[in-house]
Amino acid sequence: MAVRYLLTGLGNVGRGVLELFAAHQETLASRYGLGARLVGVADSSGAHYFGDKSNDDDKGDADRDDADTHEREKLLAIVRAKRAGRRLRDLDLPGTPLADAQTLVDRAAADVLFEATPTDLTDGQPGLGLVRRALQRNMHAVLASKGPLVLAYPELAALSDLSGDDDAPALRFSGAVGGATPSVNVGRRDLVLADIEQIESTLSSTPNLILDQMRRGVSFDDALAYAQAQGVVEPDPSLDIDGYDAANKLLILVQSVLGYPATLKDVDRQGIGGLTPDDVRCPDDRVLLLVASATKQAGGYHLSVRPRLLEPDHPLANGAPGEMGVVYHTDLYGRITVRCYEEGPTGTAAAMLRDFVGLRPRLVVGSSL
Amino acid sequence: MAVRYLLTGLGNVGRGVLELFAAHQETLASRYGLGARLVGVADSSGAHYFGDKSNDDDKGDADRDDADTHEREKLLAIVRAKRAGRRLRDLDLPGTPLADAQTLVDRAAADVLFEATPTDLTDGQPGLGLVRRALQRNMHAVLASKGPLVLAYPELAALSDLSGDDDAPALRFSGAVGGATPSVNVGRRDLVLADIEQIESTLSSTPNLILDQMRRGVSFDDALAYAQAQGVVEPDPSLDIDGYDAANKLLILVQSVLGYPATLKDVDRQGIGGLTPDDVRCPDDRVLLLVASATKQAGGYHLSVRPRLLEPDHPLANGAPGEMGVVYHTDLYGRITVRCYEEGPTGTAAAMLRDFVGLRPRLVVGSSL
Repeated sequence: MAVRYLLTGLGNVGRGVLELFAAHQETLASRYGLGARLVGVADSSGAHYFGDKSNDDDKGDADRDDADTHEREKLLAIVRAKRAGRRLRDLDLPGTPLADAQTLVDRAAADVLFEATPTDLTDGQPGLGLVRRALQRNMHAVLASKGPLVLAYPELAALSDLSGDDDAPALRFSGAVGGATPSVNVGRRDLVLADIEQIESTLSSTPNLILDQMRRGVSFDDALAYAQAQGVVEPDPSLDIDGYDAANKLLILVQSVLGYPATLKDVDRQGIGGLTPDDVRCPDDRVLLLVASATKQAGGYHLSVRPRLLEPDHPLANGAPGEMGVVYHTDLYGRITVRCYEEGPTGTAAAMLRDFVGLRPRLVVGSSL
Repeated sequence: MAVRYLLTGLGNVGRGVLELFAAHQETLASRYGLGARLVGVADSSGAHYFGDKSNDDDKGDADRDDADTHEREKLLAIVRAKRAGRRLRDLDLPGTPLADAQTLVDRAAADVLFEATPTDLTDGQPGLGLVRRALQRNMHAVLASKGPLVLAYPELAALSDLSGDDDAPALRFSGAVGGATPSVNVGRRDLVLADIEQIESTLSSTPNLILDQMRRGVSFDDALAYAQAQGVVEPDPSLDIDGYDAANKLLILVQSVLGYPATLKDVDRQGIGGLTPDDVRCPDDRVLLLVASATKQAGGYHLSVRPRLLEPDHPLANGAPGEMGVVYHTDLYGRITVRCYEEGPTGTAAAMLRDFVGLRPRLVVGSSL
């Protein structure tokens, strides 16, 4: 039986998810036993429910091949239409049009929600409502959006297997904290039993891409324009420049890895606005980066985002422009560093597939896991 | 019901495993539901079977607390005796003395084998026989020793869940390839569906610690003596110096992450012997490190171990002396780097506990996973 999934959000990441499902359909089935069917999709214009046609157990091989081909064509047709600037509500698709993503998640019969809508960081919507409802309806939720996690991590964790209840639906978000960087995964799975003294991170790529330009003598405004031309700056540049993106990623890490409850007001935050090329260039070989840190102190952790001069032997110091990374300073495992240099949204979409495959023991009927 | 485990090997790593179980007994139980009881242990002098007393479901809380205290004291008594230079066969322990580790694994009723005996890299023994038998007897196997994996990965994988059979016992070895470095874990779990173009690694710490000394002007012989005084050189220094350790770790990575079958004769291997401080010091800011690589080529991968001059912006270039690392060059996830700087054997022992906790869904009765 194929896994039935919903996808909310058809921006770069959402389209990437569909492309990856289309390209890797056979590998997912043969290597992981994970057939998959998109049963519903939504963008900001509306939603569409294809219906639950996933059960093709009773089909012969030839019919199943036909179904696979049909599925791949369906996914790629949506991608092409969106790339061409069309809205979902204007497409001629088989099935049932619905008002919006929330209606889709309220009504659809599905096993997994992939949530990749643009994040509103003041109220976490629409992602928060979608993820909450999916978990309440016993769907697993795989997120690329940060808003729901930043604003409602304790609530969502309590609704999911992160509460410790193995029977609850899974909540996964390895693509929400630095794209393809396995920042959350290494923190949660590979540092078992460790006492974490400090986290240092450069998971907000754009400010450090801007600082790299300024290191070459470019003014702040021109460096920002350069980054905007690369398509990597948030529509509201303040999210990047003033360190909100870095703070939000830090908040997800400290809640999910450290189990430490915190909100944006707990972060001592300083951005890169107002810096000049002379501030950024060092006479020695240190390098100025926007670093988000959590440092153990009496009663918890001190959280900060600020430009820091890193010594050349700091494990985040010699990255490529905009390379992301996180350092965990631990007792049992020493100093563990994870870095990722990627371009484009593929890494985030791939991280959602990584999460999906990680749910295999819960998705494959007959798995003994 | 507590998980019953065997431990073979009571060197630094094995003792570390016992210390970690003693120190984290309560956390393992409360956070992961993993009670654990050492039911058998072996060193090179012999083995000891404590018997299957793990079932304390029918005990009251007070009795269980007593049992926990007793277990902790048992573990720490073994550690103290070994630290004092005593042999297992000379200790006065409750239960049954056995001839050797193989007899223990042949006879004991247990759920998990922790295998941490010294590796013989010509025949993989005694670890290979122990792991093979454990898997055949349906015990999960957690390895710190490299020999069995280097020499018999295909056979051991076929006996375990790595064959794709979820009902087969698990084979885990995250501590065998760079101590605490989550090199295997990131490769296997976080690069799902990726095409891996190249792996570069500095997971053999000792040669690079020696090169670091030589960079400071120390002769090869004195640098080797320095590393030996740190206790990090293999009894046969050739394993480190001639790149065998680096090659073996690479062979485990390429088999387990790339699924590419290879043996030592497939590795184009060049060590650091014969280098002088002048060879090691660069006039520019490049750095010479012993790097093990797997590079995609027609029909498979080219495997090599050799000293390489890394540019300063290479993600492994700015490590601390002897810092370990691996870089995965992928299509979907970009360039992913994992590094670990640790001292002492705690990281490897902790990695075995990491593997153990990762088996939780298979170990906890009543888990729905």
